[in-house]
Amino acid sequence: MQDFKAILAAIHAELNSEVDRGIVASYIPELATVDSNKFGIHVATMEGPSYCIGDWNQPFSIQSVSKVLTLSIAMGLVGESLWKRVDVEPSGNPFNHLSLLELESGIPRNPLINSGAIVVADVLVSELKNPKEDLLAYVRDLANDQSIRFNEEVAQSEIRTGFKNFAAANLLKSFGNLNNDVDEVLDFYFHQCSLEMNCAQLSKTFYFLANRGKCSRGKTYLNESQIKRINALMLSCGFYDEAGEFGFKVGLPGKSGVGGGIVALLPNHFVISTWSPGLNIKGNSKLGMEALERFTTKSKLSIF
Amino acid sequence: MQDFKAILAAIHAELNSEVDRGIVASYIPELATVDSNKFGIHVATMEGPSYCIGDWNQPFSIQSVSKVLTLSIAMGLVGESLWKRVDVEPSGNPFNHLSLLELESGIPRNPLINSGAIVVADVLVSELKNPKEDLLAYVRDLANDQSIRFNEEVAQSEIRTGFKNFAAANLLKSFGNLNNDVDEVLDFYFHQCSLEMNCAQLSKTFYFLANRGKCSRGKTYLNESQIKRINALMLSCGFYDEAGEFGFKVGLPGKSGVGGGIVALLPNHFVISTWSPGLNIKGNSKLGMEALERFTTKSKLSIF
Amino acid sequence: MQDFKAILAAIHAELNSEVDRGIVASYIPELATVDSNKFGIHVATMEGPSYCIGDWNQPFSIQSVSKVLTLSIAMGLVGESLWKRVDVEPSGNPFNHLSLLELESGIPRNPLINSGAIVVADVLVSELKNPKEDLLAYVRDLANDQSIRFNEEVAQSEIRTGFKNFAAANLLKSFGNLNNDVDEVLDFYFHQCSLEMNCAQLSKTFYFLANRGKCSRGKTYLNESQIKRINALMLSCGFYDEAGEFGFKVGLPGKSGVGGGIVALLPNHFVISTWSPGLNIKGNSKLGMEALERFTTKSKLSIF
Amino acid sequence: MQDFKAILAAIHAELNSEVDRGIVASYIPELATVDSNKFGIHVATMEGPSYCIGDWNQPFSIQSVSKVLTLSIAMGLVGESLWKRVDVEPSGNPFNHLSLLELESGIPRNPLINSGAIVVADVLVSELKNPKEDLLAYVRDLANDQSIRFNEEVAQSEIRTGFKNFAAANLLKSFGNLNNDVDEVLDFYFHQCSLEMNCAQLSKTFYFLANRGKCSRGKTYLNESQIKRINALMLSCGFYDEAGEFGFKVGLPGKSGVGGGIVALLPNHFVISTWSPGLNIKGNSKLGMEALERFTTKSKLSIF
Repeated sequence: MQDFKAILAAIHAELNSEVDRGIVASYIPELATVDSNKFGIHVATMEGPSYCIGDWNQPFSIQSVSKVLTLSIAMGLVGESLWKRVDVEPSGNPFNHLSLLELESGIPRNPLINSGAIVVADVLVSELKNPKEDLLAYVRDLANDQSIRFNEEVAQSEIRTGFKNFAAANLLKSFGNLNNDVDEVLDFYFHQCSLEMNCAQLSKTFYFLANRGKCSRGKTYLNESQIKRINALMLSCGFYDEAGEFGFKVGLPGKSGVGGGIVALLPNHFVISTWSPGLNIKGNSKLGMEALERFTTKSKLSIF
Repeated sequence: MQDFKAILAAIHAELNSEVDRGIVASYIPELATVDSNKFGIHVATMEGPSYCIGDWNQPFSIQSVSKVLTLSIAMGLVGESLWKRVDVEPSGNPFNHLSLLELESGIPRNPLINSGAIVVADVLVSELKNPKEDLLAYVRDLANDQSIRFNEEVAQSEIRTGFKNFAAANLLKSFGNLNNDVDEVLDFYFHQCSLEMNCAQLSKTFYFLANRGKCSRGKTYLNESQIKRINALMLSCGFYDEAGEFGFKVGLPGKSGVGGGIVALLPNHFVISTWSPGLNIKGNSKLGMEALERFTTKSKLSIF
Repeated sequence: MQDFKAILAAIHAELNSEVDRGIVASYIPELATVDSNKFGIHVATMEGPSYCIGDWNQPFSIQSVSKVLTLSIAMGLVGESLWKRVDVEPSGNPFNHLSLLELESGIPRNPLINSGAIVVADVLVSELKNPKEDLLAYVRDLANDQSIRFNEEVAQSEIRTGFKNFAAANLLKSFGNLNNDVDEVLDFYFHQCSLEMNCAQLSKTFYFLANRGKCSRGKTYLNESQIKRINALMLSCGFYDEAGEFGFKVGLPGKSGVGGGIVALLPNHFVISTWSPGLNIKGNSKLGMEALERFTTKSKLSIF
Repeated sequence: MQDFKAILAAIHAELNSEVDRGIVASYIPELATVDSNKFGIHVATMEGPSYCIGDWNQPFSIQSVSKVLTLSIAMGLVGESLWKRVDVEPSGNPFNHLSLLELESGIPRNPLINSGAIVVADVLVSELKNPKEDLLAYVRDLANDQSIRFNEEVAQSEIRTGFKNFAAANLLKSFGNLNNDVDEVLDFYFHQCSLEMNCAQLSKTFYFLANRGKCSRGKTYLNESQIKRINALMLSCGFYDEAGEFGFKVGLPGKSGVGGGIVALLPNHFVISTWSPGLNIKGNSKLGMEALERFTTKSKLSIF
């Protein structure tokens, strides 16, 4: 077993003085005000101990990281039928995401890009009695933490300004791949993106994906085949147009969000969460990506 | 001078018995109920006489034909500055119209495709005091006919189901190329598309484009350079993905609509309007296209 | 009848002192050495008289202008069957011409883009006994001028460096839309592009397209329907990604080449040829485009 | 340790009676004649023992599987500078591979698609004294087997008919991303694709990629970071448009070829090679994909 405590300390020491920390996302007005000096890491291991450093206990907007959680719920609810409405291939296209949707007749490339996550949101709006409440209950249960909540200001901020997501949802609707009202689905979608967690909560929430479907309390959420699919999707599609680069440099399944959070995991070993609000040019947390790369390099632990 | 009366009679006789009249547009529920046996033609000449045959005096939904009229108003109001927000090139892309918009950073290819016409609608919503009333007044003035009106049922039908246009408007908005609210612009846009005219009214409305800017009563609407630009745009962009084919077979600037109407013109000579609701595979009126091709072939009159 | 002599004199006076004359094409090494100060215009009228000014009698490489001539031969040889192998729509895509070819299964958008002209060249290689000699004979006959010739250095220069054309030809071959050897077809294609003419020869060569199929000596080359199609194609596809702009500003069917030549025509009235080697950002002769725009503005003659 | 022998026996029994074995590739004439009933599997473990069943000892054309081997050589020769000429992202585009190359200015998406492998071949033609002989020596050394050879008939067959690869190489050349002659690079490329191995040779050749850079005899070929990158690339890009699906269903880095061979590996554990010539609709061996899916399911061994 590597000395994770020493590794985290070393990474934090190396990176915390970094001046170029990327750019804090400004397209969601509510997120633009976050302090770019924040930087935290948390590791939860299957063997028991956890490790943390820096701003690991400050909550942030998890944004796209939430797509993995709604996907988990949807897979549990509708099973394989989900894949009739969304594909499992990397999007591989930095240029024009709506184009692909058009070319492929309204079937999103995968559930971790926006259009795919909107289809997943539509499934949950159809299947859940109280979609927002039920999502919150699911996440709180996974993390065993009732304090996790939506940030209503962030959600409303996106409802007012998320025109590209409105475009995607309407395009899906025009192809018959959205069963509920655009506004209703996006209200749910923007709320899921507004979920706030700190690094420790994020690690605990994703624990079941590293632990063959069981959360830290031993409750089973999905079967092994479903866990394998989610991890495979995170590896190939979790980092926008930097997925290939992340696969090489870090070598772990993971998911990033524009709030600056990243979660990654090594099956049967650990979950690691990082938070630093500044983003690199590809839209992923700059310090987070560097921290994860150093973590797998120093620990010599990766899936490859 | 050709014998237009005889030519229209011959064309009507040849085509009116046609069994395969194409498919009536069904994506706008209100349009799906139109009788596919309707077929009318009207010609207005600069020399004075008019000619008509068949169902020339029955009103239909002019749909995309209206894009030329709103473009005319916008050119008069904002002049050359319009071309910063919309280009003048053929779209040339049957596959993915939103893709092009994405690739070209929210600048529509031309004002006669939907996204371009939505930008033009946005200009009018900004510039006109009472956009819908002012549009109606402009059209009634051009045609010298106060009976021209919107079809509110058709407009509402599109507001409920025009998801692809909502996608386009939101995408424009995300690129900063829509200044007003999406719903407000599309309310105007769907109303302009719902304008109803018969063939005679359509010929009179478009008379000024064949007559160097002057309507049949002699009032000047646009300067010669602007008229030239509109005619050039109709020739290269007026028939969706069939523009090249129309340029060859008919050889006149023109514009079609999914309501089955087509208007075309030979500068300094005539305007011709046709109506038959069945559409060919490219979305243009099947009998209308054939009628126009026969008209220019029989009369030996075209711009080429 | 306008005073063409005075108009040409005025245009030449206005433009010849222009300092910013665009950039001489350098991708064909042999063309890069041409003097960018050259500027000539020639007009041939159906009524008889011709007009010329500047460097109208110096030969230049006609390059893509030749595509209209090979198209004319192919239409005469194989008729309508040509359109099974090449479409008649504007390409409308500044980004990726080979992409369109791939998306559309090897059917080029029109015969005036490179891939389309290569298909036309393939037709001529199949149909003509001695393709290069027969092409030369056809052109000399049209112009009634035996001095017109290929520039072998230019042809060889392109054979060595025209990799994008080799890519297009191989892609066509992979889709089964090239019947002869890639090297043989491109040898012919690069020779046609290397044809040299001066402005007067160019006007005479294209005379038949303005004169309903008859050359200046009265010999008929194509029927009126074929002439109409070629003129329609030149209008919608003759100026690369600037076709729409040219249609508006000039309002004549025409064709440009990277050698700096442009030919345009008004059916039943005149053919006008210009030459200035510097190209604008869209790849068309900068002074030539401006000269043509001023010519139709001053003469008030255009198809619109 | 799972009982690999029993697992292979079960898989072979289950699949060998399969009637629908996919379609043998016909676009390379020499490959079209292979017997579609062939089916073999071979597993080499890091612990020592090997396992095999069926037609594991019959040689086949490894085709695209060879791309991993030339990539390995190139990474050893030019290091990180390779990534200036080829990217590491999934292509994600079933529609138009040359389009992407055009959109991205001649930088292939990754070294495991054809255009990327052609750039790698260009590197080897530049760097190796006797490219074909040196490649053969490298592969024979990896496998410790001097009998491995090119199939000259297959190579010549592709040289005559591989027009799409000629298109790709010429397009690369036009963007300045090919330093040697198109014909010379493709002669090398088609030879690498024509390499013949049986399943056992393939497992031994790829052993070093599962064994942190060391072949079965203990010789080190690449450092751990390079091995990690190659495995990451195989996972995200090794199966054309089915990479995501393979990542989920099998969960191993791997590479397929149109000759019907597939090789996959679990780092530190094993290499598995399968061969069955019939391909599924995505171009990967139908029985091979099914065998690998069953192997990781039965053994519960995968990277996820």
